[in-house]
Amino acid sequence: MEQRTEISSLGEFGLIEHLTKNIELQNASTVVGVGDDAAVIDHFGKQTVITTDLLIENVHFDLMYTPLKHLGYKSVVVNLSDVYAMNATPTQITLSLGISNRFSVEALDEFYEGVYAACEKYGVDLVGGDTASSQKGFIISVTAIGEVAPDKFVKRSTAKKGDLICCSGDLGAAYLGLIFLEREKKIFLETPTVKPDLEGEQYVIGRLLKPEARKDIIEFFETSSITPTAMMDISDGLSSEILHICKDSELGCVLYEEKIPIAEETRNAAFKFELDPTACALSGGEDYELLFTIPQSDHEKIVLNEQISVIGYMTEPEKGSKIITKGGNTFDITAQGWNAFNSK
Amino acid sequence: MEQRTEISSLGEFGLIEHLTKNIELQNASTVVGVGDDAAVIDHFGKQTVITTDLLIENVHFDLMYTPLKHLGYKSVVVNLSDVYAMNATPTQITLSLGISNRFSVEALDEFYEGVYAACEKYGVDLVGGDTASSQKGFIISVTAIGEVAPDKFVKRSTAKKGDLICCSGDLGAAYLGLIFLEREKKIFLETPTVKPDLEGEQYVIGRLLKPEARKDIIEFFETSSITPTAMMDISDGLSSEILHICKDSELGCVLYEEKIPIAEETRNAAFKFELDPTACALSGGEDYELLFTIPQSDHEKIVLNEQISVIGYMTEPEKGSKIITKGGNTFDITAQGWNAFNSK
Repeated sequence: MEQRTEISSLGEFGLIEHLTKNIELQNASTVVGVGDDAAVIDHFGKQTVITTDLLIENVHFDLMYTPLKHLGYKSVVVNLSDVYAMNATPTQITLSLGISNRFSVEALDEFYEGVYAACEKYGVDLVGGDTASSQKGFIISVTAIGEVAPDKFVKRSTAKKGDLICCSGDLGAAYLGLIFLEREKKIFLETPTVKPDLEGEQYVIGRLLKPEARKDIIEFFETSSITPTAMMDISDGLSSEILHICKDSELGCVLYEEKIPIAEETRNAAFKFELDPTACALSGGEDYELLFTIPQSDHEKIVLNEQISVIGYMTEPEKGSKIITKGGNTFDITAQGWNAFNSK
Repeated sequence: MEQRTEISSLGEFGLIEHLTKNIELQNASTVVGVGDDAAVIDHFGKQTVITTDLLIENVHFDLMYTPLKHLGYKSVVVNLSDVYAMNATPTQITLSLGISNRFSVEALDEFYEGVYAACEKYGVDLVGGDTASSQKGFIISVTAIGEVAPDKFVKRSTAKKGDLICCSGDLGAAYLGLIFLEREKKIFLETPTVKPDLEGEQYVIGRLLKPEARKDIIEFFETSSITPTAMMDISDGLSSEILHICKDSELGCVLYEEKIPIAEETRNAAFKFELDPTACALSGGEDYELLFTIPQSDHEKIVLNEQISVIGYMTEPEKGSKIITKGGNTFDITAQGWNAFNSK
């Protein structure tokens, strides 16, 4: 039988000590880490970037099919993605948890394993947080801090007319991973003896459960002397995000359906569920890819990078936000991304 | 009838826009505020301090007797208190909320009124956050950022033997405020027609519902050229906090019961409930006063400040952590502060 240590046996301070005792700080900028009223960070000569996300059980994740280690990893990654989306480098995180007593210390250890794995991979330090009891459900609040050279940060509002619209990686997979796991959950709840059939769906499931942040793209910008004119990460679906850039930059856009990068595995999964892969890419969400605009003159700098696709360009605001389909028809882009306040 | 606007009628982005549209930034260091993937902060030449707190309905607060405006105010203040406890000046906060659909937009407006009141009073900018739906209960996560001149921050671990132990303001009141409101709640639930009798208890209730952070003490340190050797804020009760300083500084201490500052109103409230005022000060919590140590040579610098009490001194670790009662008896100090994982 697995060991189960009750959280109450450690107490709040004992628990924090247990969970944070093996932290090895990686950043010289981390002056004071976990264990005081606050952490101290030294970003001399750089600007500090800060972002935060709140993840709530059964709203943002389902523990029935989300391993705790993956959840810990993902909780960190989704915040780092926001830091990269500013063209900045993440350096520290804080992590607050609301935990009900159905969790054991061993379960929390698993969660923290994922947190530390992400910290190590992305070179960030866990420097603080809070641990509270929750009456119901697991609550995760992560704040990420990063640094950026003065005025090198990239906002959403600064795209220029004629700029190329680019995105990293491929889109729509995480949404299909979710559809797939929700179906398996439903089958399991109806017939618990049926084993889940994950055959062929590893890619889309992996994209949902263990996303990565595009550190490599930010490093590529640095080495290629590219500063995007506008950038954000794709967490709510391509449609929703490009509309943010259009609205904030007071411009319109044209996207080409055929240019939107979609993995073969995603197309196959969409086919099985009788879903349109383009709709999944436009409205799915949780891709954590980067959406950015660059001047046309920078095109040759990115053309050889297979991780970057040019999917359209920015237009005058009067032209609206349009997508041209493979069949040559033009439609308005509408935001249909995941909205936490709809239907949930 | 009061207006009730459903949150779903605004959508997530509409809601954030509604709640943040009147922000006026106060700090030159706030380069980018709400509305992008992350905020950008410029603390050139200073070190950055960061702290975070998670507040969960029915664990940390009870909406039956906590006005939303006060709750918003307090959510900010408790985090600023941690920044001051590092001898730093808070400059920015982020705020994430988990909201169930029993909340209206008007209710959130009230909460934000308190948030903005605290931001204005303490000169901090709200620069980001996240809004999520919660299936049950109101969830508040605040992260506070501050700045401090290089190496002027004060940790818990650096008290020296012989240092004077000081605290600001008075202790124990918030705990009695809680006892009082819990009693009134019980009476109300049993007999809803009985009006609450708040006569004479405004002070202790105010200390619970609308605490202040000790900005003035940090400013006093600055103008008086005092750098405490160790400092923390008193959120879990004096006993728990002084034991943290002793443990982290590897020292013992002696406290004098008669020196612990307790307001007349607190003594009266304790008397009514047949509680020992000293026990309330030692084990109560939520005072948000500062506990700090200074060299004996700095005594004359603080002696005229009526907001500061000298309550004891640091000793060799072998002597343990002791309190000498008014009757002249010596007891070990034990941590009996509020522990989120006990009995709740």
